[in-house]
Amino acid sequence: MEFSALMTSAGINVGLCALFLCLYSILRKQPTNVYVYFGRRIAQEHYRETECYTLDRLVPSPSWILKAWGNTENDILHCAGLDSVVFLRFLVFSIRVFSIATIVCLFGVLPANYFGRDMLHKQIQLESVEVFSIANVKEGSRWLWVHCLALYIVTFSSCALLYQESKNISRMRLAYIRRSPHNLSHFTVLLRSIPIPGGEMLRDTIRNFFRNYHGPSYLSHQLIYRTGKVQKLMSSAEKVYRKFVQLRLPSSNTRQRLYRCGLCGGDKTTPFRFHKNEVDLNEKSIDLTFADIVQAEKDCIAAFVFFKTRYAAAIVSQLMQSPNPTLWVTDQAPEPHDVYWSNLSISYNWLWFRRVLILVTSIAFMFAFLLPVTFVQSLTQLTQMKKMFPFFRDILKMPMVTKVVTGYLPSVILLLFFYTVPPVMMLLSTIEGSISRSDRKKSACHKILYFTLWNVFFVNVLSGSLLTQLNAITRPKDLASQLAEAIPKQATFFITYVLTSGWVGLCSEIMQIFALVYNFIRKYVFKLDDDPELVPTFPYHTEIPKVLFFGLLGFTCSILAPLILPFLLVYFCLGYAVYLNQILNVYVCKYDMGGTLWPLMHNTTVFSMVLTQIIAIAVFGIKLSKFSAGFTILLIIGTLLFNEYCRQRFSSIFTSLSVQDLIEMDREDELSGRMEDIHEELLSGYYKYFPDKDSQKSDKCNGENSDSTIVNPFASNFSQVIKPIRSESL
Amino acid sequence: MEFSALMTSAGINVGLCALFLCLYSILRKQPTNVYVYFGRRIAQEHYRETECYTLDRLVPSPSWILKAWGNTENDILHCAGLDSVVFLRFLVFSIRVFSIATIVCLFGVLPANYFGRDMLHKQIQLESVEVFSIANVKEGSRWLWVHCLALYIVTFSSCALLYQESKNISRMRLAYIRRSPHNLSHFTVLLRSIPIPGGEMLRDTIRNFFRNYHGPSYLSHQLIYRTGKVQKLMSSAEKVYRKFVQLRLPSSNTRQRLYRCGLCGGDKTTPFRFHKNEVDLNEKSIDLTFADIVQAEKDCIAAFVFFKTRYAAAIVSQLMQSPNPTLWVTDQAPEPHDVYWSNLSISYNWLWFRRVLILVTSIAFMFAFLLPVTFVQSLTQLTQMKKMFPFFRDILKMPMVTKVVTGYLPSVILLLFFYTVPPVMMLLSTIEGSISRSDRKKSACHKILYFTLWNVFFVNVLSGSLLTQLNAITRPKDLASQLAEAIPKQATFFITYVLTSGWVGLCSEIMQIFALVYNFIRKYVFKLDDDPELVPTFPYHTEIPKVLFFGLLGFTCSILAPLILPFLLVYFCLGYAVYLNQILNVYVCKYDMGGTLWPLMHNTTVFSMVLTQIIAIAVFGIKLSKFSAGFTILLIIGTLLFNEYCRQRFSSIFTSLSVQDLIEMDREDELSGRMEDIHEELLSGYYKYFPDKDSQKSDKCNGENSDSTIVNPFASNFSQVIKPIRSESL
Repeated sequence: MEFSALMTSAGINVGLCALFLCLYSILRKQPTNVYVYFGRRIAQEHYRETECYTLDRLVPSPSWILKAWGNTENDILHCAGLDSVVFLRFLVFSIRVFSIATIVCLFGVLPANYFGRDMLHKQIQLESVEVFSIANVKEGSRWLWVHCLALYIVTFSSCALLYQESKNISRMRLAYIRRSPHNLSHFTVLLRSIPIPGGEMLRDTIRNFFRNYHGPSYLSHQLIYRTGKVQKLMSSAEKVYRKFVQLRLPSSNTRQRLYRCGLCGGDKTTPFRFHKNEVDLNEKSIDLTFADIVQAEKDCIAAFVFFKTRYAAAIVSQLMQSPNPTLWVTDQAPEPHDVYWSNLSISYNWLWFRRVLILVTSIAFMFAFLLPVTFVQSLTQLTQMKKMFPFFRDILKMPMVTKVVTGYLPSVILLLFFYTVPPVMMLLSTIEGSISRSDRKKSACHKILYFTLWNVFFVNVLSGSLLTQLNAITRPKDLASQLAEAIPKQATFFITYVLTSGWVGLCSEIMQIFALVYNFIRKYVFKLDDDPELVPTFPYHTEIPKVLFFGLLGFTCSILAPLILPFLLVYFCLGYAVYLNQILNVYVCKYDMGGTLWPLMHNTTVFSMVLTQIIAIAVFGIKLSKFSAGFTILLIIGTLLFNEYCRQRFSSIFTSLSVQDLIEMDREDELSGRMEDIHEELLSGYYKYFPDKDSQKSDKCNGENSDSTIVNPFASNFSQVIKPIRSESL
Repeated sequence: MEFSALMTSAGINVGLCALFLCLYSILRKQPTNVYVYFGRRIAQEHYRETECYTLDRLVPSPSWILKAWGNTENDILHCAGLDSVVFLRFLVFSIRVFSIATIVCLFGVLPANYFGRDMLHKQIQLESVEVFSIANVKEGSRWLWVHCLALYIVTFSSCALLYQESKNISRMRLAYIRRSPHNLSHFTVLLRSIPIPGGEMLRDTIRNFFRNYHGPSYLSHQLIYRTGKVQKLMSSAEKVYRKFVQLRLPSSNTRQRLYRCGLCGGDKTTPFRFHKNEVDLNEKSIDLTFADIVQAEKDCIAAFVFFKTRYAAAIVSQLMQSPNPTLWVTDQAPEPHDVYWSNLSISYNWLWFRRVLILVTSIAFMFAFLLPVTFVQSLTQLTQMKKMFPFFRDILKMPMVTKVVTGYLPSVILLLFFYTVPPVMMLLSTIEGSISRSDRKKSACHKILYFTLWNVFFVNVLSGSLLTQLNAITRPKDLASQLAEAIPKQATFFITYVLTSGWVGLCSEIMQIFALVYNFIRKYVFKLDDDPELVPTFPYHTEIPKVLFFGLLGFTCSILAPLILPFLLVYFCLGYAVYLNQILNVYVCKYDMGGTLWPLMHNTTVFSMVLTQIIAIAVFGIKLSKFSAGFTILLIIGTLLFNEYCRQRFSSIFTSLSVQDLIEMDREDELSGRMEDIHEELLSGYYKYFPDKDSQKSDKCNGENSDSTIVNPFASNFSQVIKPIRSESL
């Protein structure tokens, strides 16, 4: 591909981007689109765009960038959570790293490449793109030390910035958790694989177990049932329970405590005193026996167990409870609004099997995707294309069409194929059995990242048929040298990929084309009102892999084909502006991952650096520069040691909270008297989010106080049957 | 190699074994060798061999086997700990599995191999050993389903037995821990990476930290100093400390508690009341300032922190203490007699670096060992041997010599080379920074196992030069088919390896040749008395890899070259008798790993099965039997799922204790009133084992009660300086 073809491609994309951004700046001013472009503001801040003059509404302006820019990190933290801040900081990190890389590589490596071989240079626009890559440096050239030095500078600056960033983010995470008012999940443990008691009732078994082993800190628990089938049986449970209690515990003398009366199985007789329609209930027919209840309880698959302090809940969730590790399994519960209810019904004993199954399926999917990618790959070779589409032969002879087809079409097709990946991966993560939406998103994020790295990077680089690529995996030794030869050659493809998937992708992100069309149809075809519930959450699972992949591309191409770097730098800068705007205006933060995606970003960056270094060694080997290859080996060792140090220093911070933090948070709450409020909230917190709204409503009708489920005795006993819903919005 | 050559080799080894065993049965009756052959009995049971008649002492008898056989599992558990029982149970498991495999393969696979090709069979003794292997089955043979079926039977029976064994052993482990009177380590946490306080004294910092965050359960702590240099400074600390306390805490009003007075930094003024030579000390000159003490405390590198209950100690050791994961690092402490003192002085911040370094060194050592192995490998090819040693050419022409040289010499040389491996690996594990002797042994065991698998199995099978072998690793796809072709060819080598390294190795183990010679020299040359301290511990780190390796050999050869199975079965049976005898009579159990080596045995067995199946697929591929290959893929999937299930079910049992067990053990001790005794013992328990005997003695002289260090106040404050010893017996 010639330099001019590349520039044509770049020109088309710059034009498209400009068009999209102008369109965006006009569309966002239209009042009909306010739910598309200001979803978060409306949902969380009850924002209303002031009506402006008609002419102003039709003039494009870059004011949105300035508006977004004006927000501090604290504003973002406040309105979009820690994950957004972490994501934006990673973009800032990328901008910093690739600014350094661009300067070093454009002024050091690029001239070394261009003048790397004694040859007659053509006019610059007729020059092949390969001339600017390391492929142009002749074997045994003395100038390869420039590449080695550039690699050192890039690696050292990346490591320094990465360490700084890790330090900042772990500090921010701790501060964020300490500042957040009260995470109910910190007091809650999800209990699964509860042994089926013989004769005894399940709620008693659980209560006895935790009273016995965690007596001073145990607060109460809440059962979760498997299916909606139990619902029917349970509808008359209210009556039978009362009778049962009266028969079994005639002289029960338990203490009265407000926060224990409701949802726990604790003091059963107390709550009846709050109950108004006690007499009415007694008059109804009682048609459930004790055996029926025990039978019904077999459908209980999990329970939330509440503790008085965060520290106690952390102990229970982190220590093995029973000598049989597959019984009384405890995990930290997700936040109430983050629970993925339908997955709670999965038997714990089959979770491992699901995980294995999904792992195998994901790998199979990754390899099945080779087929479309191989097809796309063949499009970049014009001769192959002519063979495949003989009827287009005449059109393909036109030089302009050729440029567009080879430079632009493959990336677009690949992009369209890639739109199917996130939903598939999300589905796989759902089947995997994540108990929270954030976990599901995180898991999907990992899968999409590996998928992208493999299918976009490796498969595209290792050009050729399906078989060649499969051979490459089975021979890891050859992989490096194959990559070393292929990357400079594939530089054109990657640059156009940055332009199409990167730049234009960002523009389509800010335009929200799908949402725009959906909103239009909703409003003008179906005549529906705007619904604040429909505001989407930020799609970390698709955006983080994208950004990380461009980072990988930047690292690996930095010294091999530095021409890509300016395009990438523009991508990251534009990305920062776009994502900042979207986070502030469009996406709502429904659940929080607490910055736990940072380790993925950190590890992928280190992986990118090490891969770059391995490829560099292979390149130096091909170019017969033992000196540079030797120094690069030292660099790999250094990078791996750096990674190991960071793992030691930071990784635990992202998995659990320290005793010191937990206890201090508990003490603060106790001193300020908030603890009692938290305990009360705890008991209703999870119940509020039960997906089965009907059952919830019928409960409320029974109790006088329709707002609080705490005074409803059956909320604690039978009526809290959770019917898992199988399909849930993301 | 001919069948007769194999029989010659077997004959030599049977003869050698018989000789060794006869010799053993005579030597064990000699009173001079009683410390060699009855070390454990003398050390632990004060056993005395009854003098018998002179004639009887010179007649060999198999009575030792009968004597060993008479012991039940409980006897072994009582006198040699759980590890021995686990090891012996693994031998029993191997006997069971290979009994089934021998029956199935000798009566099913062997005839299928022998008649696998239309050929004229020679007399059986002139037949090549390869005729009995799968190499003799012709391509596309219909009889390959026999091999597939045999593989299924062997895998299923192994999995069933393995599951049963895992279940038994985890049950035994729990029972063993519950029954063991009081493991001090359960109450103790090893604290490392203590932040250096500013202005405050270190002991105060630690005490304040644990009182603040673990107040109700914290008992006391004990500092451990880095080097012997502090000792000098500390010798007069007793005096200054008293003055300092009097100045600082003139009206200290702390409670008196017996178990807190001594070793803790807790109630400082109390212990002086127990101290007799208080006045004399005051009269001595005081030459240390507060700054000196703070300076000296900088050499403190770790501390043992004691808790009132096992549950509390487990919480502290398993939860992250500080928001910075590299500060206040807590681990479960080893038992006092198991602590590897010198490694406690390693800075925690460098431990990860040591681990990485040792990992790299171990891998480098593994590959460096290829050189001698390649040399040995070349010996099995007679023509190569003639080239290498032209002066032996005449001798090598003699048929008997040829048989001995090709069949016997290579294994012997390999065996001699392998004697250097355990000390090297032990040294590496020491440098790695294990805090206990059992950890060090376990780590060495892992290293030696990987080393054996790689250097004996893979390298020997992938015959040829160093380069061929390195190529094989980098192409994992070819590895399986290379193994498939090579294993039947190398069957002879492996059979002789079983004979020499296996059978003769066992005989030399029971003979204790080194100990015998050492004992002789000690007694008759240096005229030294017997020392019960010199009784060795069981070398799990060398014996477990050996047994596991023979297991791997059995699995991989089972359907490829079933001729090896009877020899292996004899090995396991003889091994059971020999190890049982040695465990009961020779080796003492100084420290216990609590059966935590079982997961290694389990995993290696599963690895062996999966490797066998992969090789079988490659073989079926070569023999053009797609049907069998397909069924074997199903078997692999099944085996991997079985392994994953076992991991879920059992692995946590071998890493930590459950809350239920911990609390019940605590309650039992509290009810029986033993808790107070344990607390007292706790404070002196670790101090007793401090390696610096001089310092310990000098401390004891200060106190009146020379037996108990608890009443010595300076035991808790300055004088407990631990000078690490760099070389320690295993």
